[in-house]
Amino acid sequence: MSTQAGHPTILIPGPVEFDDAVLQAMAHPSESHVGAPFVNVFGETLSLLRQLFIASDPASQPLVLSGSGTLGWDVVASNLAEPGDDVLVLHTGYFADSFADCFKTYGVNAFQLKAPIGSGPSLSKIEEELRSKKYRIITITHTDTSTGVLSDIKAVSEIVHRVSPDTLVVVDGVCSVGCEEIQFDAWGIDVVLTASQKAIGAPAGLCIMMLSGRAVKTSEARKAPPGSYFASLKNWLPIMRNYEAKKPSYFATPSPQLVRALHTSLQQIFRAPLSVRFETHKAVSRKVKSAIESLGLRQLANTPADQANGMTAIYLPEGITSPDLLPKLLAKGVVMAGGLHREIAAKYFRFGHMGVSVMNEGLGHIDKALAALKEALAEAGYQKAQA
Amino acid sequence: MSTQAGHPTILIPGPVEFDDAVLQAMAHPSESHVGAPFVNVFGETLSLLRQLFIASDPASQPLVLSGSGTLGWDVVASNLAEPGDDVLVLHTGYFADSFADCFKTYGVNAFQLKAPIGSGPSLSKIEEELRSKKYRIITITHTDTSTGVLSDIKAVSEIVHRVSPDTLVVVDGVCSVGCEEIQFDAWGIDVVLTASQKAIGAPAGLCIMMLSGRAVKTSEARKAPPGSYFASLKNWLPIMRNYEAKKPSYFATPSPQLVRALHTSLQQIFRAPLSVRFETHKAVSRKVKSAIESLGLRQLANTPADQANGMTAIYLPEGITSPDLLPKLLAKGVVMAGGLHREIAAKYFRFGHMGVSVMNEGLGHIDKALAALKEALAEAGYQKAQA
Repeated sequence: MSTQAGHPTILIPGPVEFDDAVLQAMAHPSESHVGAPFVNVFGETLSLLRQLFIASDPASQPLVLSGSGTLGWDVVASNLAEPGDDVLVLHTGYFADSFADCFKTYGVNAFQLKAPIGSGPSLSKIEEELRSKKYRIITITHTDTSTGVLSDIKAVSEIVHRVSPDTLVVVDGVCSVGCEEIQFDAWGIDVVLTASQKAIGAPAGLCIMMLSGRAVKTSEARKAPPGSYFASLKNWLPIMRNYEAKKPSYFATPSPQLVRALHTSLQQIFRAPLSVRFETHKAVSRKVKSAIESLGLRQLANTPADQANGMTAIYLPEGITSPDLLPKLLAKGVVMAGGLHREIAAKYFRFGHMGVSVMNEGLGHIDKALAALKEALAEAGYQKAQA
Repeated sequence: MSTQAGHPTILIPGPVEFDDAVLQAMAHPSESHVGAPFVNVFGETLSLLRQLFIASDPASQPLVLSGSGTLGWDVVASNLAEPGDDVLVLHTGYFADSFADCFKTYGVNAFQLKAPIGSGPSLSKIEEELRSKKYRIITITHTDTSTGVLSDIKAVSEIVHRVSPDTLVVVDGVCSVGCEEIQFDAWGIDVVLTASQKAIGAPAGLCIMMLSGRAVKTSEARKAPPGSYFASLKNWLPIMRNYEAKKPSYFATPSPQLVRALHTSLQQIFRAPLSVRFETHKAVSRKVKSAIESLGLRQLANTPADQANGMTAIYLPEGITSPDLLPKLLAKGVVMAGGLHREIAAKYFRFGHMGVSVMNEGLGHIDKALAALKEALAEAGYQKAQA
């Protein structure tokens, strides 16, 4: 039986709701981080990540580190670019600004290609920019958690390989891995970084990455020493290779409970084909977005092609604020999130629809949330404008 | 009732055994990292850490970050020393070498003051070294997890304040916080860094730190920008101050489950006075060390003053290896650890005695381990040498 009865339903763009089995794995008794039972689970977890990313090149390498998605930026910026290098950061909201700050920390010149709120830079602008200068790295926020804008990473990667083939394609997949299609090998991606607490469906506390063989080689051929110690691939790659080969290895103590929760969640993900998972997230997203539209509300993301499938960022109606709306939703047992984009944080709210809340319709989370939203808006005095 | 029945007893120098309530906190349902329930728990956790470190100066600041103890080194090296600075690393085993590597990563010159295996540098040598050069930082591994050597941080800090008062006193307390006395304010310490999975008694996955007002000021007065992004105090200090003031704040997503487990564990620690906790660890350590001696075995740590109270590093008898001994212990339901010090790893093993296994005598962990060790040694063919 669930021990989760009675808690409010968390529908923010991460952390998401967890399956009971995932939470049970969190309560696993203590074990040695170099003992066979844990080493085997960690090794299997890394292999399952290869499946999740659809990455079969043996030269590629998945990583699982204690930390958060943010740590993945440090791994990229301190290992794959060298001080003085130029990198191109595609801007779709809050997270590009932060990723650019991270590059600057390590002496790397980050150029942001910006677009109006609610969209991403156009493919033609990206191509133009890539032709103008030699960029070591391009970064793409797949789903920008601050705006709900989705980027077409397949199309961007295709451009990069065509016009600037030496540029590494780095995807910030914090809010997309597990709910948006990513074909790591087939699309020629070099890095995806993500975190445990979003569509992968495990509690927060892990930074998860997939590196291509080319990214691994780049880190190994680096002239400057790695710019970070805790985020150093030189320190972590041998450890991850050993764990994947089910050999004990030590650089810094991993979290057995979090890794077991991730393992459980990945096993659950593979109960259905990935294609079904992605289609289900699309279908639920369409349902949410159509309900939002029926309520007369507008999304930040301009066009359907710009709209992420794991979350929706919604403008608040005139005169209603997040501090009005969110407590009314909470009173109905639903937690949504306020705005995050610095320029317009007070003007919108965010609804996350990822993981078990999407895949397990029987939980009723989405219907409950849509009903609660309608009621809460009415209580806040909202009336849909006449067409 | 415990859900932990039947699992082997983990008596390595971290992770340690967990109380049932701590594991239940790990299985807490999802919640928002900026919602009031979690923000309150995080805020209380930070306040409890002030009590644990006996640090009441309001200018000081506790931190809890997703990561591991190793991340604490990056926080120190990338915020409190500037590139080109000299720092003095007192060497008592494996961890000083690694901390020195971490400093070098950030352009800081780390000088190690070494001592033979089983002891630490003498106080007179430390004083001499501090008089010879202007060191920005001195680091002391309180308990070296690789050798079980305990350092007298109070005495070292007294020397620093007397002969080199501008030098920051940094304690690596990964294997000591929660089982060895630390009077942060009274002893004039500037930084203690530790991790969740040792004597604090929560699962691995958190880096825990206490910074003095002087350390905070040093980071704020820094000329160079912080050398790391994920470990940047500029990024984290405002967040921790907000959480402690019970205000939501965001830089990178924390792990609500791990923070709740830490909160539960800290609440349990304060059920008894800290002095009783430290005395109990000393008493159990004496019991373990006396049993080891009765078996005719020798410790790495030379003298009683060098011996940590939360673990014991023990030379293997001639002709017996860790791959002989450890599986025999496991067959009796006890997990101990192999050696870690690079020069002599194959020649010794480690027995951790911290946390609930020490404080809750009713669990019987220590007696079970001592009996298992005696039997396992006999099965491996060990006979105590005649006196």
